[in-house]
Amino acid sequence: MRIGILGAGQLGQMMALAGYPLGNRFVFLDTSGSPSADIGTVVMDQAEQSLDQFLQQVDCVTYEFEHLPLSLVKAVEARKPLYPGSEAIRVCQNRAEEKALFTRLGIPVADYRLVSSAEELAAAAAELGGAQQIPVVAKSLTEGYDGKGQAVLRTPAEAVDAWNKIGHPELIVESFVDFVREVSMIAVRGRDAQVVFYPIAENHHSEGILRYSMAPLPDVSEQLQTVAEGYIHQLLDALDYVGVLTLELFQTRDGRLLANEMAPRVHNSGHWTQNGAVTSQFENHLRAVQGVPLGSTAPRGLTCMINIIGEHGDLSALLEIEGAHLHLYGKEERAGRKLGHVNLVADSYEELLASVERARALLPGAPEAQFSFI
Amino acid sequence: MRIGILGAGQLGQMMALAGYPLGNRFVFLDTSGSPSADIGTVVMDQAEQSLDQFLQQVDCVTYEFEHLPLSLVKAVEARKPLYPGSEAIRVCQNRAEEKALFTRLGIPVADYRLVSSAEELAAAAAELGGAQQIPVVAKSLTEGYDGKGQAVLRTPAEAVDAWNKIGHPELIVESFVDFVREVSMIAVRGRDAQVVFYPIAENHHSEGILRYSMAPLPDVSEQLQTVAEGYIHQLLDALDYVGVLTLELFQTRDGRLLANEMAPRVHNSGHWTQNGAVTSQFENHLRAVQGVPLGSTAPRGLTCMINIIGEHGDLSALLEIEGAHLHLYGKEERAGRKLGHVNLVADSYEELLASVERARALLPGAPEAQFSFI
Repeated sequence: MRIGILGAGQLGQMMALAGYPLGNRFVFLDTSGSPSADIGTVVMDQAEQSLDQFLQQVDCVTYEFEHLPLSLVKAVEARKPLYPGSEAIRVCQNRAEEKALFTRLGIPVADYRLVSSAEELAAAAAELGGAQQIPVVAKSLTEGYDGKGQAVLRTPAEAVDAWNKIGHPELIVESFVDFVREVSMIAVRGRDAQVVFYPIAENHHSEGILRYSMAPLPDVSEQLQTVAEGYIHQLLDALDYVGVLTLELFQTRDGRLLANEMAPRVHNSGHWTQNGAVTSQFENHLRAVQGVPLGSTAPRGLTCMINIIGEHGDLSALLEIEGAHLHLYGKEERAGRKLGHVNLVADSYEELLASVERARALLPGAPEAQFSFI
Repeated sequence: MRIGILGAGQLGQMMALAGYPLGNRFVFLDTSGSPSADIGTVVMDQAEQSLDQFLQQVDCVTYEFEHLPLSLVKAVEARKPLYPGSEAIRVCQNRAEEKALFTRLGIPVADYRLVSSAEELAAAAAELGGAQQIPVVAKSLTEGYDGKGQAVLRTPAEAVDAWNKIGHPELIVESFVDFVREVSMIAVRGRDAQVVFYPIAENHHSEGILRYSMAPLPDVSEQLQTVAEGYIHQLLDALDYVGVLTLELFQTRDGRLLANEMAPRVHNSGHWTQNGAVTSQFENHLRAVQGVPLGSTAPRGLTCMINIIGEHGDLSALLEIEGAHLHLYGKEERAGRKLGHVNLVADSYEELLASVERARALLPGAPEAQFSFI
C-alpha cells in the first residue's frame, strides 16, 4: 500500500521507517518549504497546486501535523481515504472546540473561559484566579504549538500585556491546575473500531518543549490507567477515529486526571514505544490506517525517552549506555530544535534512572529529570 | 555519515532502515540489474563505469553480498574505507580458501578433498565415503549460494553425473556430517577490535533455502556458546574484520561443532535480532562500520524467524499473532523467492512453538519445523 503523508518532518520519517517492513511505501506532501523526512518521495506543495500529483501516487492519506489548512485536508478527503478524518483536525485546531468536546463527553478539564478582548481577559483572570489570586494561563484558540501563543497571568493587571503579547483575537483562559505531573495517554483505533491502549507516560517539559517521557510508571494504579483509557476511548469513538490519538492530561494532587489537549497523530510522548513496547506507535498507526489487525501495546522493559534538543552532544558516548537506542532525524543543529531522541530501556527503575542520569550528562542543556515517583 | 552499499537487495534495505535512526544515509551500487532496496539512492552499475558516481556520494562502503567481482571490491577499497575488507570477500568466495583458513585457525571442519575431474571426484567419494559408502557432498569452489552448484553422491558411481550437473572446473568434496542440527554464530567486530556475540541460532533449511531460525535456544550450554564464540573470534581477528560475520556450523551427535561456511555480512539467520535482541545485527553492523560503540547483543524474549517464500499468504492473520513482527521486502511473488520474514517473539518456548505452528499454517509451503530440542 502506498501511503501519503501530509507533512514531511521527523514524525513522517519515523512512520516511513516503521512502514517499510509492512510493505508500505510513502509519498509526502510538504507544506513547510523545508522537508526533512528524506525518505520516499516528497512532493512540494505550492499553493495546493501539487495536490493532484501527490494524490495520484497514493492509496490513502494520513498526516504527521494537524496545523494544516482545513481546505487542503477536505480536498484530500474528498478524493482519497483520509485517516484520521478531517473532523479530528478541525476539532484539534481549535482549543474551544476541543474543550467543548471533552466536556460533552464528560472528560474533566480545568475551569476555563473564552475571551475576545483584554478587558474580558482581565475579568476571566479575576474570576478564575479567585480571592487568592491564583495564576491563570491564556492561550490563543488556534495554532498553539510547543508553548507558543501562551502567557501566564499572575494577576488580572497583567491582562493587557498578555493580550498584546499573544496577539490573537480570541483566547482561552484556563485556571491554574495544581498538578503532580503531566501524563499522556496514547491509543490506537482500527478501521474496525478495535482499540488498543499504551501504558500512561509521564512527561517533563522545559521551556515549553518536551524533554523526557517515561513509561510504564511504577505509581500508576490499574484504576488510573482505566480512567485514562475510558476518556480516550470516548474521544476515539465520538470522532469515529482511525489511527493514533494522543491525549495529554494533568494528574492532580488529589489523584484526578484533567484533560489538557489532544493531538490527532503519533506524538513525541509516544516515541518510547519504538524500543519499549511490542509494537511502536508508528507501526500501530500504519496498521490502523491500512486496516490490518493492531499490534500488542504491551511494554517491553521500562523506558525513558529523552529528546535531543539544539545540539547533538556526545552521541558515541550515548551509544555506550546499555539499552540506549538512538533516533536521529538528520537535522542541522539549531537552538531549541528537536534533532532526535534517545530511548533508554532497562529492567528496573534503579537501572533506568542511572541510565537517564548518565545520558543527561552527555546531552547539552538537558534539564534535571525529577520524576514524580522518586 | 553517508554509507555506500554494494548490492541493493533486502539486506541493504534493512541496513538502511536500521541506519536512518543513527543519522546515516545510503547509496547503493546495484550490480544485479534489478535493485529492490527502494530506499536512499541507487546507482546502477554498468561494467563498473558508475563507480565514480557512487564513490563520490559516500564516506565509507560496505556490502550486502559477497559474490562481487574482486576487481570491483579492490577498486572501491583503494579509494574509500571498505568494511569488511576485501580479504574477507576473497576468502569467502572460495570454499578451498575458507576451509584452509578454518583449518589454519584450528576450527574443526568435516573431512574434505579438492578435485578437478570426475575421476578425482569418484576417488574422493570412495575415500571419504569409506567401506560403509556414506554419502558425500560435492560443491563448486566458487559462487555457491542457497544450495546451488551442489550435489550429493550416494556412491562413487554417481561422480560423472554430479560432475556434469555442477559444471565447474574445481570442486570440494565433503564427507557427510552426522549432525543434530545446523546452527549459526553471528558476531560483530568494531574498528577498535571490540567484539560482541549473539546467542547461537538453530537453522532449518528446506530445498536449500533457510526457512526457520530460532534464538536463544534452551539446549545450548554456556560451554557450547563459548566454543562457537572462540571460533568466530579467531576468524574476526585473523581477517582484521570490521562488521557482522556469520559462521554456519554443524552440531554433531557427540556435541562437537564443525564449521560449514561463513558469510562476511549480515545474514538471514540473524534476522531474529531485529525484534529479539537489544541491538539488531543491522544496527551493530553499521555501528561497527562507522566506528561507534557496539550495542548489546542480549536477547529480548525468545524469537523464531520464519522466511516468507514464494507467496505472501495471509499477512493480516499473521499480524494477529501476539508478538509477530512482519518484515516484507517489497518484492513480487515468485516461486522460491524470499519475499520477507516474520519474527515471532514470546516469553516461553511453549508459547513460541504455538505461535510458530499458527504462523506456519498461514504461510503457503512452509515446512513443518522440528526443532532439535523438542
